[in-house]
Amino acid sequence: MKKPVDILELSLKDEIQKRMNDAVSDILQSFDRDYSIDHISKFPLPSKDKIISILKDIIDILFPGYFNEEYINKLNLKFYLGMKISNVFGELSSEIAKSYKHEHFLRTNSCQHCDECLEHCEDSGVDVAFYLLEKIPELRRLLSLDVKAAFEGDPAAKSYNEIVFSYPGMFAITVHRIAHLFYEKDVPLIPRIISEYSHSLTGIDIHPGASIGESFFIDHGTGVVIGETTTIGNNVKIYQGVTLGALSFPKDEKGKIIKGTKRHPAIEDHVTIYSGATILGGDTVIGKNSVIGGNTWIVSSIAPGSKVIMDDDQTKVKIKTS
Amino acid sequence: MKKPVDILELSLKDEIQKRMNDAVSDILQSFDRDYSIDHISKFPLPSKDKIISILKDIIDILFPGYFNEEYINKLNLKFYLGMKISNVFGELSSEIAKSYKHEHFLRTNSCQHCDECLEHCEDSGVDVAFYLLEKIPELRRLLSLDVKAAFEGDPAAKSYNEIVFSYPGMFAITVHRIAHLFYEKDVPLIPRIISEYSHSLTGIDIHPGASIGESFFIDHGTGVVIGETTTIGNNVKIYQGVTLGALSFPKDEKGKIIKGTKRHPAIEDHVTIYSGATILGGDTVIGKNSVIGGNTWIVSSIAPGSKVIMDDDQTKVKIKTS
Amino acid sequence: MKKPVDILELSLKDEIQKRMNDAVSDILQSFDRDYSIDHISKFPLPSKDKIISILKDIIDILFPGYFNEEYINKLNLKFYLGMKISNVFGELSSEIAKSYKHEHFLRTNSCQHCDECLEHCEDSGVDVAFYLLEKIPELRRLLSLDVKAAFEGDPAAKSYNEIVFSYPGMFAITVHRIAHLFYEKDVPLIPRIISEYSHSLTGIDIHPGASIGESFFIDHGTGVVIGETTTIGNNVKIYQGVTLGALSFPKDEKGKIIKGTKRHPAIEDHVTIYSGATILGGDTVIGKNSVIGGNTWIVSSIAPGSKVIMDDDQTKVKIKTS
Repeated sequence: MKKPVDILELSLKDEIQKRMNDAVSDILQSFDRDYSIDHISKFPLPSKDKIISILKDIIDILFPGYFNEEYINKLNLKFYLGMKISNVFGELSSEIAKSYKHEHFLRTNSCQHCDECLEHCEDSGVDVAFYLLEKIPELRRLLSLDVKAAFEGDPAAKSYNEIVFSYPGMFAITVHRIAHLFYEKDVPLIPRIISEYSHSLTGIDIHPGASIGESFFIDHGTGVVIGETTTIGNNVKIYQGVTLGALSFPKDEKGKIIKGTKRHPAIEDHVTIYSGATILGGDTVIGKNSVIGGNTWIVSSIAPGSKVIMDDDQTKVKIKTS
Repeated sequence: MKKPVDILELSLKDEIQKRMNDAVSDILQSFDRDYSIDHISKFPLPSKDKIISILKDIIDILFPGYFNEEYINKLNLKFYLGMKISNVFGELSSEIAKSYKHEHFLRTNSCQHCDECLEHCEDSGVDVAFYLLEKIPELRRLLSLDVKAAFEGDPAAKSYNEIVFSYPGMFAITVHRIAHLFYEKDVPLIPRIISEYSHSLTGIDIHPGASIGESFFIDHGTGVVIGETTTIGNNVKIYQGVTLGALSFPKDEKGKIIKGTKRHPAIEDHVTIYSGATILGGDTVIGKNSVIGGNTWIVSSIAPGSKVIMDDDQTKVKIKTS
Repeated sequence: MKKPVDILELSLKDEIQKRMNDAVSDILQSFDRDYSIDHISKFPLPSKDKIISILKDIIDILFPGYFNEEYINKLNLKFYLGMKISNVFGELSSEIAKSYKHEHFLRTNSCQHCDECLEHCEDSGVDVAFYLLEKIPELRRLLSLDVKAAFEGDPAAKSYNEIVFSYPGMFAITVHRIAHLFYEKDVPLIPRIISEYSHSLTGIDIHPGASIGESFFIDHGTGVVIGETTTIGNNVKIYQGVTLGALSFPKDEKGKIIKGTKRHPAIEDHVTIYSGATILGGDTVIGKNSVIGGNTWIVSSIAPGSKVIMDDDQTKVKIKTS
């Protein structure tokens, strides 16, 4: 029986050597074409791995004792947090600065005042890192309300601990509240890297731009999509497979999609949206205290206090209850 | 060009130093408020990472040779399994004991007989670990039937190996059958940590409480939700996006949701449920040999031998075939 | 307070020792039964971890500078790629050879010409590895078109970088284009391992067999299912929750599902399919320039230039527009 493929041995064969050289050389040539997908520039992109690791540290600061092996108690909490926060600050400001620098390079391939610009990028990195750290007490207040909303909304929830520890909806809203802070500061790349990390783990796709009120609960969550310009009030509850999306994309005279308009719905306070409901359009408002039944398809506004359900024959029924 | 942000250098600036001190101190103050989300207690929570690593070891014991780098053959199998099983036993009993202790601490902040209680937690850890190990031969029998069900149900399946190796539905049912054993023993936190790990990897959300019969097959799987009190018979086949959920949540006189009632449907033997079907309610029974078509919405019982489909005009049609 | 469970101490207790011995021995006995799920053979399976790591290296070759920590610039690109490509070649040919050998062993438990067969497996490993490397320039061309399609199709897209870096649809199509190359060469196990890795990260389930044209864009993506025999033209755009699936499975006279027939739809050029649409059947053709609205259920062909939408009362409406 032959032994496994031995590269060194193979590399002695002329034919193999030649084929390999040709392959490498063809691949290298493809970098001389303009594919708009190559990132070989003066300024490195921020590191995806580093950003995810910083995100995990921020979550550790928000919920100490849950997600890491260290044993946190009242005695060591202060030192643990102090160290973690300083580390996050340093790494975060450096990745944010990289994002701004790279963006600067993309927009202005050469620039007369580049030294000043780069210094400005670094200062912005420090500023945004502080902005984020200074929001942590408020984040903790919001997240504690989200945990309570989950406990009250889900008959299967056994304890607050279980929710923090294992509910994907809780993870998604935690990450979203962080990503939204970066979005507010117009940081390039980082908000979306963070939100897609959460999307990948939870199947819940919340664009960092979405604005979400207090006491928000997503149950199960797989397949949920919440678009960039969505606004959600307080005490809203949504289930798996719900889409809050765009109805159509306005185009300019050249047929190119116009970016930056309000394209996604507004959900007012105390609304519940059951699984698989699709609500579309920037002018669509779901009035407060409404209940949107599962699998419904909604492309216009619903008055406050309404109930929209599918009856047993798969027909949509609207009832105004208040 | 300036060099990257240097924390040591920054830390010399008074203004930065002060802002950092203030940020840390504000975060620490937020731990003096009662947010119900802080876990800084006498007893550490079980470790999420450790539990996932134990889960992977259990899967390795169920399917040796598939998921790790070691080369398992008839000669080393006995020693390999013996060692793996003893290690799992030790780690598992210790994490289970931690879960019980932490739960005990949550319920009874101080307790007169605490030494006895803790000893009881440790004994329960050992008992449940044994319970799980002793169920492995039965788990292997069940899983081999699930693999066969997948091969027979999916025209794209090339071999049993491919199914064990890469089918997300197979992974989800494997993890569920393990999580359900912990659920049966009322272990806190661990069942849900395990099931959400699988949910995160597969998009299939099976509550550990769901009771599932032999020869179960989930195809594709993303978006499947199976609630806590669901019961599923033998030879059932379901597709992506199927929800077996609750219809409404009974509330007590204070308007709080009552926990612990039967809220999810019963699916009898030999039922097939196609993609996107939603079946809701604790009184809903899908009779044996029925076929539930894709995208249907079902909130009441279906007689055995029925076929429920959406016709081409998006209307639901029920046909009794037997 | 008792110290944590001590295995060594436990192992001294006769009762525990006996229970453990029994558990191990029962598990070992279950390997003497034929469960069709045991992989204890002469030839090891390919390593799942290794295949995923090779996949990541291939993605690094396609998009240098995005996904790893190393700083790639014009100076080091050539050396970086040269080394990466040679490493991938060696590891890939060896894993492919393992897949073929294992398949050979499964089909022919003993074989008179086994030495020759195994040598053939190794040669095929080298051939397929070259096939893949030689396709990389073409892959890069296709992927650059996919990135542009995403940028033009999504108003929320900020830059090409953001798409490569964080769009799950972009990741899924990248992995699919690689997996499809292995599928074309009939490599066992590897195509599905790769595609399920992407499914797990993105919630997008594309069978490696699906044939997909240029400038393909999947937005959000969670819950998308694209079956093995699907064909998709150029400039097609699909949203989350879209199923391109099978309508029924032809069975042979013994009631066993027949494998290998055309079971999934054909989607022609310039078609857009909105979220939650389900299109089923091997004879179903969606004609070019058609728009398929969200949540529709389609089991027969649609003429070119059609618009199929759900109106506000949840009824399906077909409009021929060209």
